[in-house]
Amino acid sequence: MTDKLHEECGVFAIYDPTGELHCAEETYNALYALQHRGQESCGIAVCGDDGSFEYIKDAGYVNEVLNRGGVQKLQGSKAIGHVRYSSSGEGEDCYPQPLVSKYKKGTMAIANNGGLVNRRALIDELEYSGAIFHTDTAAEIICYLVARERARCHSMEAALSTVMGKIHGAYSLVIMTPRKIIAARDPHGIRPLCIGEKNGAYVAASETAALDAIGAKYLRDVEPGEIVVFGSEGMTSFKENCSNEKGLCVFEYIFFARPDSVIEGQSVYEARKTAGRLLAQKFPVEADVVTGVPDSGLYAATGYAEEAGIPFEYGLIKNRYVHRMFLHPSDEEREKMMGVSLNVMASSVKGKRVVLVDDSVVRGVTGKRIVAMLREAGAKEVHLRITAPQFMWPCFFGTDIPDRKELIAVGHSVEEIKELLNVDSIGFLDVESLKLLLPDREGGFCAGCLTGKYPVKEAEDAVKNLGGVV
Amino acid sequence: MTDKLHEECGVFAIYDPTGELHCAEETYNALYALQHRGQESCGIAVCGDDGSFEYIKDAGYVNEVLNRGGVQKLQGSKAIGHVRYSSSGEGEDCYPQPLVSKYKKGTMAIANNGGLVNRRALIDELEYSGAIFHTDTAAEIICYLVARERARCHSMEAALSTVMGKIHGAYSLVIMTPRKIIAARDPHGIRPLCIGEKNGAYVAASETAALDAIGAKYLRDVEPGEIVVFGSEGMTSFKENCSNEKGLCVFEYIFFARPDSVIEGQSVYEARKTAGRLLAQKFPVEADVVTGVPDSGLYAATGYAEEAGIPFEYGLIKNRYVHRMFLHPSDEEREKMMGVSLNVMASSVKGKRVVLVDDSVVRGVTGKRIVAMLREAGAKEVHLRITAPQFMWPCFFGTDIPDRKELIAVGHSVEEIKELLNVDSIGFLDVESLKLLLPDREGGFCAGCLTGKYPVKEAEDAVKNLGGVV
Amino acid sequence: MTDKLHEECGVFAIYDPTGELHCAEETYNALYALQHRGQESCGIAVCGDDGSFEYIKDAGYVNEVLNRGGVQKLQGSKAIGHVRYSSSGEGEDCYPQPLVSKYKKGTMAIANNGGLVNRRALIDELEYSGAIFHTDTAAEIICYLVARERARCHSMEAALSTVMGKIHGAYSLVIMTPRKIIAARDPHGIRPLCIGEKNGAYVAASETAALDAIGAKYLRDVEPGEIVVFGSEGMTSFKENCSNEKGLCVFEYIFFARPDSVIEGQSVYEARKTAGRLLAQKFPVEADVVTGVPDSGLYAATGYAEEAGIPFEYGLIKNRYVHRMFLHPSDEEREKMMGVSLNVMASSVKGKRVVLVDDSVVRGVTGKRIVAMLREAGAKEVHLRITAPQFMWPCFFGTDIPDRKELIAVGHSVEEIKELLNVDSIGFLDVESLKLLLPDREGGFCAGCLTGKYPVKEAEDAVKNLGGVV
Amino acid sequence: MTDKLHEECGVFAIYDPTGELHCAEETYNALYALQHRGQESCGIAVCGDDGSFEYIKDAGYVNEVLNRGGVQKLQGSKAIGHVRYSSSGEGEDCYPQPLVSKYKKGTMAIANNGGLVNRRALIDELEYSGAIFHTDTAAEIICYLVARERARCHSMEAALSTVMGKIHGAYSLVIMTPRKIIAARDPHGIRPLCIGEKNGAYVAASETAALDAIGAKYLRDVEPGEIVVFGSEGMTSFKENCSNEKGLCVFEYIFFARPDSVIEGQSVYEARKTAGRLLAQKFPVEADVVTGVPDSGLYAATGYAEEAGIPFEYGLIKNRYVHRMFLHPSDEEREKMMGVSLNVMASSVKGKRVVLVDDSVVRGVTGKRIVAMLREAGAKEVHLRITAPQFMWPCFFGTDIPDRKELIAVGHSVEEIKELLNVDSIGFLDVESLKLLLPDREGGFCAGCLTGKYPVKEAEDAVKNLGGVV
Repeated sequence: MTDKLHEECGVFAIYDPTGELHCAEETYNALYALQHRGQESCGIAVCGDDGSFEYIKDAGYVNEVLNRGGVQKLQGSKAIGHVRYSSSGEGEDCYPQPLVSKYKKGTMAIANNGGLVNRRALIDELEYSGAIFHTDTAAEIICYLVARERARCHSMEAALSTVMGKIHGAYSLVIMTPRKIIAARDPHGIRPLCIGEKNGAYVAASETAALDAIGAKYLRDVEPGEIVVFGSEGMTSFKENCSNEKGLCVFEYIFFARPDSVIEGQSVYEARKTAGRLLAQKFPVEADVVTGVPDSGLYAATGYAEEAGIPFEYGLIKNRYVHRMFLHPSDEEREKMMGVSLNVMASSVKGKRVVLVDDSVVRGVTGKRIVAMLREAGAKEVHLRITAPQFMWPCFFGTDIPDRKELIAVGHSVEEIKELLNVDSIGFLDVESLKLLLPDREGGFCAGCLTGKYPVKEAEDAVKNLGGVV
Repeated sequence: MTDKLHEECGVFAIYDPTGELHCAEETYNALYALQHRGQESCGIAVCGDDGSFEYIKDAGYVNEVLNRGGVQKLQGSKAIGHVRYSSSGEGEDCYPQPLVSKYKKGTMAIANNGGLVNRRALIDELEYSGAIFHTDTAAEIICYLVARERARCHSMEAALSTVMGKIHGAYSLVIMTPRKIIAARDPHGIRPLCIGEKNGAYVAASETAALDAIGAKYLRDVEPGEIVVFGSEGMTSFKENCSNEKGLCVFEYIFFARPDSVIEGQSVYEARKTAGRLLAQKFPVEADVVTGVPDSGLYAATGYAEEAGIPFEYGLIKNRYVHRMFLHPSDEEREKMMGVSLNVMASSVKGKRVVLVDDSVVRGVTGKRIVAMLREAGAKEVHLRITAPQFMWPCFFGTDIPDRKELIAVGHSVEEIKELLNVDSIGFLDVESLKLLLPDREGGFCAGCLTGKYPVKEAEDAVKNLGGVV
Repeated sequence: MTDKLHEECGVFAIYDPTGELHCAEETYNALYALQHRGQESCGIAVCGDDGSFEYIKDAGYVNEVLNRGGVQKLQGSKAIGHVRYSSSGEGEDCYPQPLVSKYKKGTMAIANNGGLVNRRALIDELEYSGAIFHTDTAAEIICYLVARERARCHSMEAALSTVMGKIHGAYSLVIMTPRKIIAARDPHGIRPLCIGEKNGAYVAASETAALDAIGAKYLRDVEPGEIVVFGSEGMTSFKENCSNEKGLCVFEYIFFARPDSVIEGQSVYEARKTAGRLLAQKFPVEADVVTGVPDSGLYAATGYAEEAGIPFEYGLIKNRYVHRMFLHPSDEEREKMMGVSLNVMASSVKGKRVVLVDDSVVRGVTGKRIVAMLREAGAKEVHLRITAPQFMWPCFFGTDIPDRKELIAVGHSVEEIKELLNVDSIGFLDVESLKLLLPDREGGFCAGCLTGKYPVKEAEDAVKNLGGVV
Repeated sequence: MTDKLHEECGVFAIYDPTGELHCAEETYNALYALQHRGQESCGIAVCGDDGSFEYIKDAGYVNEVLNRGGVQKLQGSKAIGHVRYSSSGEGEDCYPQPLVSKYKKGTMAIANNGGLVNRRALIDELEYSGAIFHTDTAAEIICYLVARERARCHSMEAALSTVMGKIHGAYSLVIMTPRKIIAARDPHGIRPLCIGEKNGAYVAASETAALDAIGAKYLRDVEPGEIVVFGSEGMTSFKENCSNEKGLCVFEYIFFARPDSVIEGQSVYEARKTAGRLLAQKFPVEADVVTGVPDSGLYAATGYAEEAGIPFEYGLIKNRYVHRMFLHPSDEEREKMMGVSLNVMASSVKGKRVVLVDDSVVRGVTGKRIVAMLREAGAKEVHLRITAPQFMWPCFFGTDIPDRKELIAVGHSVEEIKELLNVDSIGFLDVESLKLLLPDREGGFCAGCLTGKYPVKEAEDAVKNLGGVV
């Protein structure tokens, strides 16, 4: 409904040696907590004690696809789950995960969050040696590679370790076999993945919020490049692919993750609030009120308000019941929808100079409309503050940044963007400030969509071919 | 899922003499904006130019019951809509409205928000004279009375006016006939109802937020006791039942209505924020952070924070995707659910003295759980501030206040409630302060559930029979 | 899909004093057996031991509306059920039954099969005295009248008995109250209704096939005008409204009822077979093969074949999976559909002189198409034999005979019909022969749609006003 | 619900160079006509003029999975469709087809009916060389092999031709690529497949009944081993794999196919009727009436009746609305169900000596129950006549014959079966007579499940390993 970016996936896994927990139900509850990472399809696969796999997956929200009755029938001491946002939009070819496949050594299920830069080359190579593809997912590519490598290896984790040397990009994945569950992250740790414990069972999840949702204790993040195995010997770790080049996507903090999650030691909420504070320092303005675009802009808005000493007010309110009114809205429908999904709190802005904090400007369509709504409601001035730099480059790691020609910042100066959005002033957080958002975290991060510089070499090469000046 | 009160209905109507608007679709969009007033059933009825009535209604959310395709087939220049929360919970006997009935003079559709004190006496009288009831709704009672009166009157509005002398309680209703739409409020105006205009069409809605959602201009509130008619002569008004004893439910401001609505001149958002400020004045405390229970507690929390000069922080986050996970949760399920639907933002509260602002304490179950969650996350102290006095008495006007024996405030002193909820201090807004919430509005209000004093005499009598000391 | 007539309802009731049976489930199974009597909506209502009523009902087939899980939750030792065909076609105003209503003396549920001739007068009278109508069903009219009469009577059955003096037409109904179940038929017994027994429980059903389906023993038919009560004193009978003027709809035998049902002592299957035999006697023809239009034409076809000494062959086959492909088919769609739903067995008819037996010709549309299909498949001659006389007049008793101007037999001679349908010869069973179909049954029957003579005086009057020569 | 065998699939394809037809809609109508071949899942895939593939497929009946609106959106001049019966029963892993896969040379969709004897070896070989399997279907195996072979071949049909040398068993398949549609049958032609023409478009279908349903003209059967290509050069044929060893499954005539289909020149209906005649010759009995178990037993019953000169009567009636009442019925539920789904026409059998004709006895469960029902209804004698020999051996070619230990004929003599089923006499058609059923067809057939002799060598080997004496 908006032109916000979308995260492309969330994953969860649980291994319960005690047999006390209902693994599918824990996964179901955890997927609710990860629903913000993907709303187009979802699924749960379990592995029973006899090694048999069962799953439920389909296009739709968790509460549509996975009803409690069906979930309760999925019995087994191991389960993995997935939520997905795909770019296709239509239900039919949304390729829900987990992907359950039979291969030479048995059966495996896989669920993944991320994107591979050398996807095309890997597909070509696999097809050349006789692979057929049922989906367009990185999960299927990885599944093939692991299946093939597994024939030459003594263990699944060894196979995965070898495969990790061949696949370049972002992946935070979980794999379930009849005997174990594996959780792994790419060597730069571009997407988050953490592990926890509940009553003797191990769990892995894209975000800590999913641990909280099921009452699991957070243990630690999976390290970039690490392979963690939950099996009969408890939790073991393999670090052959680890490096020190951290490259977590900075937009996990700015927009994607839940504010109540903590990623690599850094509270997402605190990062957003800090972004607001930095904007107040860098782009001060005389104003009567600070407000934010719900939900993620609100946290930064309170930071801006505190730092600037300007009162924070709720100036916009979001309708909590508007999910998916339209699948492919026309422009006219999108316009109508905006009114239904977002409303101005007129008493907060009427006759006032308003600072409006938002997390990003992608194509500028919604931003422009929101500014117009504020003005119609009587705002005297609107000063837009954005908690991220301008989007200029593609993402190869699992988010759906539009084509460059659609990005408002490509081909328009900041001044021009200000005019296009009809605001009295505008301020984007600069790239240099991004590291200040993460005081509780060490190491680098990926801001490739902002800078054109990526932690993965292939991405660097790919973007050079786009012909823009980086 | 929580032990919050529930509003019992929202209504909408549109009369478009121009034929330019798609009335059913406007109603559909407006119902999205009123969904917070009722989530168990909903419906739309239209009247075509040939006088025929069509409707879609069923148990479920707007996006479940009313798909866009079906709505677009409902053609006609008049439409009314309804959302309902009913106490039954099960879909089968949820009695969705609008109620469409044939009677001596033709067909009418009715949608209502409210509750009648003399409901039983009216039913008895009607049954005595041969009525049968398909539902347990006030709408059906009113429909019967209007149908019978209509036989003796020259117009629908005249019939309704007479009926209004017989029915005692709260009602904000819309009636559609082949030739007109009527909107009316009970003589005390206990439930809100406002009228607006869009491109030459008249609309009526429970809240201004519904006008905003469809881009309609707010004209004014329907006056207590007023009957407004949209018909071939435009908008006409009948005020025989008007009085000066205003009695709007104060909980519309505190909890029920959307913050972006304005009721009788008073911004709901401003009232909530003021409630926070008053609590800060009356119950100051040394603390590090102020937070609120989302969503309605947040607005008051910012007021408290401002007034107290203590930083506001988001301390709790609500999962936006958890609608109706369970229909009739067991206690164990309810407990699990709380973790899935609400999470603590640990970085906001850890090691801190926390002021927690909420809008009400009904049975105390969720309040107790939330306090425990904050303490588990490391809050050093929790000071609870409630933007309403204690619930002590029933509501006869359409909200589902539990039986007195379930209300935590009945039989427990404030000190005891503090102990039960395990908070370090507690403060309820006092009854006297309630009027201070509404500086932009004139006239009295109903706070019967807090005080035992009601604007309607029958309610006064009924509560006396309950045996408690008022 | 075809232009066959449709039955308008089936009813079922069970009263189990033993508490051994699951009444809702028995009803569910019985409704499957009555599904042919109505496919647009269905429902089950139960009355629990505490006198509370619960129900499930909606538009759709039994297997769509009533899933086993939901049915199993309906607990109680009394239940009634209903299937309905309504003329509206669209789900929204299909008014599923049972109708559950509160009235002066409590609650009742009612399910009915039939049609009232003085429907309009009864509605006028009821509306005049303050009734409002939620549906357009005879059930609601009867419910009103019974509710009103009940105030003056010592029992439900007494109230019903009085009401039966006022309502003129066809009704086979079941009423459930907290203490008993009542089954009754109009004084001419126009629609069937029988009673049975299963493990100490009493049941009533539109057809014996429903008794067979649940393993109940057939006891007897409810007599025309009889009121049967299942209650704490077992089964009791009231015959104040009984007369000797039997008037069962002859089309129950010819087309509506299941062939495995026995109505008033006469096997439906035998009646159909006899019709075939009579046609062979009256309209002999030299032919190679006899075939029938499935399903009801098949039984008569075997009778024709036996009598004529011509081999019976299956010449047409019906697709068992085509239910409701279209709700309101266009002519083009109807044409396509015919091919999907009916196919010719070419080897049976190629190069042959074919006798085609069908149960009726209404508008002639499908008949014409079937004849064309046979000719395309190589039939040399097609001789049509119809097991009923021509439709000439309306039915007031619950079947949907089209308007006279649509009936092929109105305005066309038999010779003309033969030309229109493009058959080599045609023969309709004559009115005089109808009684020969029912050798095992005593008393008259209603053939009003064929003769214009009806057992109910109001119907006689009504048809005179149509202006045709009877 | 019964212990009948189930066919495992039906396929359909259409290639319309004219662009006049709506290929998805034609496929939809054709799938209705093939629904009897598989009721667990179904699907349609189309290929648009831009080479893009779209599909709808899921567990469920055609009318559940494929609604008209969705089908109409599938645009393209090529389409294939599939219906499937799978042994799993549960929706989740029912693997609906068509299977749409990307491979080295592009995309293909495949739909198949059959079963491969060397399935396990092929899977092993493929997995050994790095394949992963998403389904357990022969279609996926064939897809892999074709994809791999295609890399070495100049065309899809050449690739398929080579693959046909490696796969042993039954397959009647259709393949859709962006440029053509291929229809092929295994070298013994174990499953049927025919081709037709409609308004310049080519179609292929499992049975001629599907051609009739859409008004297509039958051209001919695909020959055993033949590959037929519909493409820009019209229809071309490749016969490298053709042999003269025909091996059509004889049960297509006896039970699986629709009676209105003609397979390899032989009318299915005629074959069934002949079976009845042969039974009358071989197992004559003095009786009063001949009846059949609907639907397939009816056709043979008329043959028996004619030959024996005993009247044919409908003695059992099947409920047309009972589809899938239970997914996995318990024995008690199955028993109840029988009553709901099948009823005795008592007037046909009471006091009579009954010849009951059925198409097969698998485990004997339903047969026993039906005999009991007839006796309860008063049949004096029941003489069972079966239009097939006893099931003794497995089927490797796509039907779900139960394990040998469940087959009533394994371990029981004919006399013992007679006792078990409680019949007065019993007669099975002998193997030698099977060829007499097919006078209009040349060549051998497969009766492996009856004889243990199969047209495919691997099947011969496999059955030897079962240890029974063939």
